[in-house]
Amino acid sequence: MTQRLAGKRVLLTQVDRFMGPDVNELFAAEGATIIGDSGALASTEEANRLAEATGPVDVLIANLAESNRPSPIGEISDEDWFSLFDALVHPLMRVMRAVLPGMIERGRGKVVVLGSAAPLRGAPGYGAYCTARGAQLSLVRAVGLEVARHNVQVNAIAQNFVENPTYYPPEMLADTAQVERMKKMIPARRFAKGVETAELALFLASESSDFISGQVIPLAGGWVTTM
Amino acid sequence: MTQRLAGKRVLLTQVDRFMGPDVNELFAAEGATIIGDSGALASTEEANRLAEATGPVDVLIANLAESNRPSPIGEISDEDWFSLFDALVHPLMRVMRAVLPGMIERGRGKVVVLGSAAPLRGAPGYGAYCTARGAQLSLVRAVGLEVARHNVQVNAIAQNFVENPTYYPPEMLADTAQVERMKKMIPARRFAKGVETAELALFLASESSDFISGQVIPLAGGWVTTM
Amino acid sequence: MTQRLAGKRVLLTQVDRFMGPDVNELFAAEGATIIGDSGALASTEEANRLAEATGPVDVLIANLAESNRPSPIGEISDEDWFSLFDALVHPLMRVMRAVLPGMIERGRGKVVVLGSAAPLRGAPGYGAYCTARGAQLSLVRAVGLEVARHNVQVNAIAQNFVENPTYYPPEMLADTAQVERMKKMIPARRFAKGVETAELALFLASESSDFISGQVIPLAGGWVTTM
Amino acid sequence: MTQRLAGKRVLLTQVDRFMGPDVNELFAAEGATIIGDSGALASTEEANRLAEATGPVDVLIANLAESNRPSPIGEISDEDWFSLFDALVHPLMRVMRAVLPGMIERGRGKVVVLGSAAPLRGAPGYGAYCTARGAQLSLVRAVGLEVARHNVQVNAIAQNFVENPTYYPPEMLADTAQVERMKKMIPARRFAKGVETAELALFLASESSDFISGQVIPLAGGWVTTM
Repeated sequence: MTQRLAGKRVLLTQVDRFMGPDVNELFAAEGATIIGDSGALASTEEANRLAEATGPVDVLIANLAESNRPSPIGEISDEDWFSLFDALVHPLMRVMRAVLPGMIERGRGKVVVLGSAAPLRGAPGYGAYCTARGAQLSLVRAVGLEVARHNVQVNAIAQNFVENPTYYPPEMLADTAQVERMKKMIPARRFAKGVETAELALFLASESSDFISGQVIPLAGGWVTTM
Repeated sequence: MTQRLAGKRVLLTQVDRFMGPDVNELFAAEGATIIGDSGALASTEEANRLAEATGPVDVLIANLAESNRPSPIGEISDEDWFSLFDALVHPLMRVMRAVLPGMIERGRGKVVVLGSAAPLRGAPGYGAYCTARGAQLSLVRAVGLEVARHNVQVNAIAQNFVENPTYYPPEMLADTAQVERMKKMIPARRFAKGVETAELALFLASESSDFISGQVIPLAGGWVTTM
Repeated sequence: MTQRLAGKRVLLTQVDRFMGPDVNELFAAEGATIIGDSGALASTEEANRLAEATGPVDVLIANLAESNRPSPIGEISDEDWFSLFDALVHPLMRVMRAVLPGMIERGRGKVVVLGSAAPLRGAPGYGAYCTARGAQLSLVRAVGLEVARHNVQVNAIAQNFVENPTYYPPEMLADTAQVERMKKMIPARRFAKGVETAELALFLASESSDFISGQVIPLAGGWVTTM
Repeated sequence: MTQRLAGKRVLLTQVDRFMGPDVNELFAAEGATIIGDSGALASTEEANRLAEATGPVDVLIANLAESNRPSPIGEISDEDWFSLFDALVHPLMRVMRAVLPGMIERGRGKVVVLGSAAPLRGAPGYGAYCTARGAQLSLVRAVGLEVARHNVQVNAIAQNFVENPTYYPPEMLADTAQVERMKKMIPARRFAKGVETAELALFLASESSDFISGQVIPLAGGWVTTM
């Protein structure tokens, strides 16, 4: 069998955080040339410079993360609220806006957004985080339909309970009692390894998924279902 | 029969725009005392001052609107993007944050968000608008689950094709060809009158809906379905 | 205020079971003339005879119930499986098929299906029940879009945790430990009274909801959300 | 790279119809041992005999199809209605019931149901077909959550506009005008080849998707979105 991303150029944002290391490892093994970026995509200029420096890519993996400090609606701080939008929502638009026109022009391309299942279920106490993560999914849905006619696909993974250095640091995983409480909420009764996100991202980055666009695919051990 | 909002105090934002006039008329006829506000809720201070000046309310009707200029993903301007979040998303959080703690303390209250069906279906060319409107719905879902245990309900109407002065100005309704094209997309084959939104808002503002929270209810003549 | 169903003729199936008594009481108070039926709608002939004997109706409340004995997939008995379809799915099609053509011809009418939230979330161990209840919702969605252009609306309530004589008999409600376990699963932390279903059915049976068709509206204290 | 289904035993129902040929070809190329069946799974005995004769399998591909003759709700014939349930719904339960206990006992297994996107959107005039296809998805959702803790995954593909010998016979594909009308409804502006379904089925049949269960994944060129 051939490598599934042989000859593909992939732009992977925040390569050292969240699902970056897992995606990087699997995609490299599948033959991709990975351009890993570490920037926050904090401005239009930064996103555009990145896209220009990178050159044409076949795949964008939009890997963005930000701490999800819980707070009830009455106690959401402006700082937490805006920092979530600044980290998760605006950078996503900026990098999609910078990269998609080239894909449309070339008549092929893939965007995979590494998102969260939290907004699909609604997580009490996490209103700010759910809103920012939900905004990501709404952008995917609208743009995914828009660009489908150009043979460009935009989809999202809505994950939860996947181990990663950003949301599941070692000290959290060491808290056995909390981990057991969380696992009871998951139909699969386990956490996932990061490679499981990378495998779904690989499917969505490959030509195998060319008829799928605008979709949000849950990866959460059955914790959420969509229909 | 008694009036359905007799003795209820209702805070209605942007009373002169979008669905404000329709809600105002029906709710007044049903006995509500309506505190209409015209502000943009552009800052934490403004929202908090409004809530303080208004005093305890039984119902918040979050009526927010902003022009939905279409643009493909590659051409979204920063100005359009941020103005949508500034008009639709941040004000919604601010007013909910200002009003909900009092409702929780009193052990009853209703928030009805007048939202859009566009993010449920995904509207090609309207990525920015869909994202901001979708963020509203994600906030409703998360907070609606969070506050339900306090006998406070937060729900959203996801409407489309409802006549209102903001999105359907007279010159647009006068464009018969466009109106006919749009009606063909609607299973009900017609636009709705604003009172139809007001009637659903009335149901969600009344005690009849006390077991419904965190929901998004489409009002779009069958253009979207959820399940 | 006028009664909200004054002059309306309403066909209510299985009037003595499930939500029948609650709907009957509220709708009568709102001025409806209720034709209550007790049949199982077990054949095409029975459904057609009922529709003929009833004459033109403005509203059909499709109230159908059947015990939801749990069993894992490997142990579903043919008897349980088919009895659920015989009680919930086929009768719904039969009565809708008998009643809707007249509504279409008259250019107005309402069908409200009293369904379950279980298929929206997926209830482990209840595969058979979820399938039959889910089939009801799929029928509502498809037919709701189909008939909307005739000013006929078909919608469903997807309820859970609503007290009723069929699923919540006195001995079950007396089992305090089980009731408390169940309430912990519900964001609203309580069961609902039957009148709360009747109130949503009233909204969907009245002209207030003429722009809503093909929808499934959860009534479950936040236990499910749709979007 | 290794073959992705090397050493896997796969039961594929109705191997000569619908997506059977496409799945068969791709899965064989990926190293699977395929047990193709041609039966209608018309009885409990037939399904149980098949499972017994087949022996332990790693994967069940539930490939079931039945003509989707349109008819408005008032004209659905009993024959069409029941034939859809007999072809699509009851056989699915029978084969899942026969195969899943062994998977649960062995602590691993995959069921992939080849379903339709029609019930997700609601197809006017196809009430019977949508109901039967929707029932399939409800069964997947409930059972997918139920068996996830045993490391068994049950998921569905909700497809539309995928060429296959059952729904897209040559004479239909030769009707250029109809094909063009249909393509205008699809954001991707094209039909899919059967291999695209087979690729998604392969992903769901492989260990790459072990954290996904109870899901319905649309494959319809953006025609439906879920969230």
